[in-house]
Amino acid sequence: MMQTQVVHAKETQLFDIIDGSVTTPLGFRASGLHCGLKKTARNDLGAIVCDVPAIAAAVYTTNVFQAAPLAVTRASLEEEGKLQAIIVNSGNANACTGKQGEADAYRMRSAFAEQLGIAPHYVAVASTGVIGEALKMECVEQGIMKLPEQLTPLAEGAEQFSQAILTTDLVKKEACAVLTVNGKQVTVAGCAKGSGMIHPNMATMLGFVTTDAALEQDTLAGLLRTVTNKTFNMITVDGDTSTNDMLLAMASGMAGNEPLTEQHEAWPAFAAAFQYVCEQLAKAIARDGEGATKLIEVRVSGALSDESASAIAKSIVGSSLVKSAVYGSDANWGRVIAAVGYAGQPVNPETVDIHMGSIMVLQQSTPVVFDEAAALAYLKGDTVVFQVDLHMGSGEAKAWGCDLTYDYVRINAAYRT
Amino acid sequence: MMQTQVVHAKETQLFDIIDGSVTTPLGFRASGLHCGLKKTARNDLGAIVCDVPAIAAAVYTTNVFQAAPLAVTRASLEEEGKLQAIIVNSGNANACTGKQGEADAYRMRSAFAEQLGIAPHYVAVASTGVIGEALKMECVEQGIMKLPEQLTPLAEGAEQFSQAILTTDLVKKEACAVLTVNGKQVTVAGCAKGSGMIHPNMATMLGFVTTDAALEQDTLAGLLRTVTNKTFNMITVDGDTSTNDMLLAMASGMAGNEPLTEQHEAWPAFAAAFQYVCEQLAKAIARDGEGATKLIEVRVSGALSDESASAIAKSIVGSSLVKSAVYGSDANWGRVIAAVGYAGQPVNPETVDIHMGSIMVLQQSTPVVFDEAAALAYLKGDTVVFQVDLHMGSGEAKAWGCDLTYDYVRINAAYRT
Repeated sequence: MMQTQVVHAKETQLFDIIDGSVTTPLGFRASGLHCGLKKTARNDLGAIVCDVPAIAAAVYTTNVFQAAPLAVTRASLEEEGKLQAIIVNSGNANACTGKQGEADAYRMRSAFAEQLGIAPHYVAVASTGVIGEALKMECVEQGIMKLPEQLTPLAEGAEQFSQAILTTDLVKKEACAVLTVNGKQVTVAGCAKGSGMIHPNMATMLGFVTTDAALEQDTLAGLLRTVTNKTFNMITVDGDTSTNDMLLAMASGMAGNEPLTEQHEAWPAFAAAFQYVCEQLAKAIARDGEGATKLIEVRVSGALSDESASAIAKSIVGSSLVKSAVYGSDANWGRVIAAVGYAGQPVNPETVDIHMGSIMVLQQSTPVVFDEAAALAYLKGDTVVFQVDLHMGSGEAKAWGCDLTYDYVRINAAYRT
Repeated sequence: MMQTQVVHAKETQLFDIIDGSVTTPLGFRASGLHCGLKKTARNDLGAIVCDVPAIAAAVYTTNVFQAAPLAVTRASLEEEGKLQAIIVNSGNANACTGKQGEADAYRMRSAFAEQLGIAPHYVAVASTGVIGEALKMECVEQGIMKLPEQLTPLAEGAEQFSQAILTTDLVKKEACAVLTVNGKQVTVAGCAKGSGMIHPNMATMLGFVTTDAALEQDTLAGLLRTVTNKTFNMITVDGDTSTNDMLLAMASGMAGNEPLTEQHEAWPAFAAAFQYVCEQLAKAIARDGEGATKLIEVRVSGALSDESASAIAKSIVGSSLVKSAVYGSDANWGRVIAAVGYAGQPVNPETVDIHMGSIMVLQQSTPVVFDEAAALAYLKGDTVVFQVDLHMGSGEAKAWGCDLTYDYVRINAAYRT
């Protein structure tokens, strides 16, 4: 069942938002099934396949202990910068699994390539789940044999894929945007998983973006890096950076547009649509943070630079005390200012303003008497926005996170068992 | 009621551990009372007073928004490097309270100095509690008038003081050690508060160390910095660095020893006793972390440097996922290795060993099959030790923290209200 999105980006008109997922762009099929890695009968193996070798790019976790599938995907992309298929399992991260784990990840790649009749280096591999346990390869291989016949460009395929990549996630995360390039309709879509072990440091989850736009590999890779820094790298659930995070983008070129470059007149629209899709997925991950009941958005302005604003925004949105206060709808802005103060960034301690929603609580670093009842009502909503203005420069950033709840502890106190 | 400690430092014999607190060293008196800042009738104002101006040193939070009392204490110490009294309130941090807050902190200093008949710059001020609310000065001033008559060198005075500095703490934190310097008995004692907003970055709580040793101010200040880095700076509860943290040391000189220098033959014993007191207080803060049921100790060895080992140890002990797994007694070492990997330090991903207690779970970065029942039994204890050996160099460090529990969330979801 697809989510219906009726919001349109009226403020820019650079692109339109539609109801769609990774199979909406021309040339893509997807599917998912239960192969036996998860204890319950939920999907745990999925694939996205393109009709042609698609221009592709990826960003990976910065964790030193990168999981085996990341090495395999990196090896695939290094060959031609193109991918035709992504095979993903959930329920087991295939991380810290030594030589066996690496062999298993290569086996996933070759088995799926064989089924599709394509070169192995056109296949990317991704895994998510428990660290340090060997993959049940008999399950995976049996699943890989069944997957190709189920692949479909219909919404059903994207739905099955979206389900297959989830772990502790409660909802699937999808977004889709369309724009026109030289009279051709171009579509950008994505889906993602991520709920725990989420902290901004390159891509911090599994994310898959598809588009039918035509563009060069370098152009796609550059856009992916830039957009990741403003979206996926600006979310945190628990400050833990996973071993398996990866964001993959594939461009089929089947929209038939003139190849997009940064000089193309439609570039701003394409880049905006691409960023929209990634931002929606990133916010959906934050909102679906383990145990979360609310999305927290932090906007920092007036910093000496955008980088400085980013560091401060991440410091606030990552504070366990801010997150707990939001859960309890406690207007404890003292924790916000404390997190500004320990972010390690230049801050004038005399000139800070803080708003919770539209309620000003601190002006020029001096407490403002505010309506506690109004603050409580605001904090009881499902989205809480903190705005911090440092009044020092023009640097700004946004970051997203979620509240810290009993359920985060419950989920993570017995994840393996 | 004092805690009876019968453990002796047999491994070193450099000093002895005794049952004592901040009034055990010669020359110190203390007291505490309820002046009305806390809603319940718990003590919220306390003082330590020395019979003579004591050599003194302090370390302060690195948070940009240092609370008003820290500025006042800094001003006091800058005069002569000596203190004769410390006045502390809990229930209100007097932080982010603007000009009024600064005036209030200076007023606390002068009011207490007046009561004692000493110069204002011999008084240090410390506050802990809610950020951003004005101090009820009428309560504080009334309390300050009553305090002097209650000051006593007896255990009762230290007990009342220890109670007066607590906020969400469940237990008071005290430690005491004695050694002999040129035939004279020298005592070092300390007490501390801290339970939430605890993260290693200079002193991360309120801590008070008293000693009757004679030594120069520079020597005391240097020792305090060195020891803080190995003790208070190696604990974390929630990754939040407070606006009010301060560690103060006072040396009355009344033991009558030859002044201690780093060249003195008794220096290793004095430094060890000083470090013992600070480490006990730091571990007590970690164990009493908000909502905590267990102390987590992380030992990192084989790093390229001690600094690198410290960063890795802090990364592990600060991981919400590691903390949740310890709460649930889940032997999820994958989260430990993930925290090693995102610490931003040089690590060879092929050579890491991990032990939980005496149980090896990872050898040369490859999972070891271990006895799950034994691991569960170990993790159900009240202290959990993770040992990580990187096999790269001789750098080592220890860090302490606590598990993440439902109660941490409960306590912090409604702290103000």
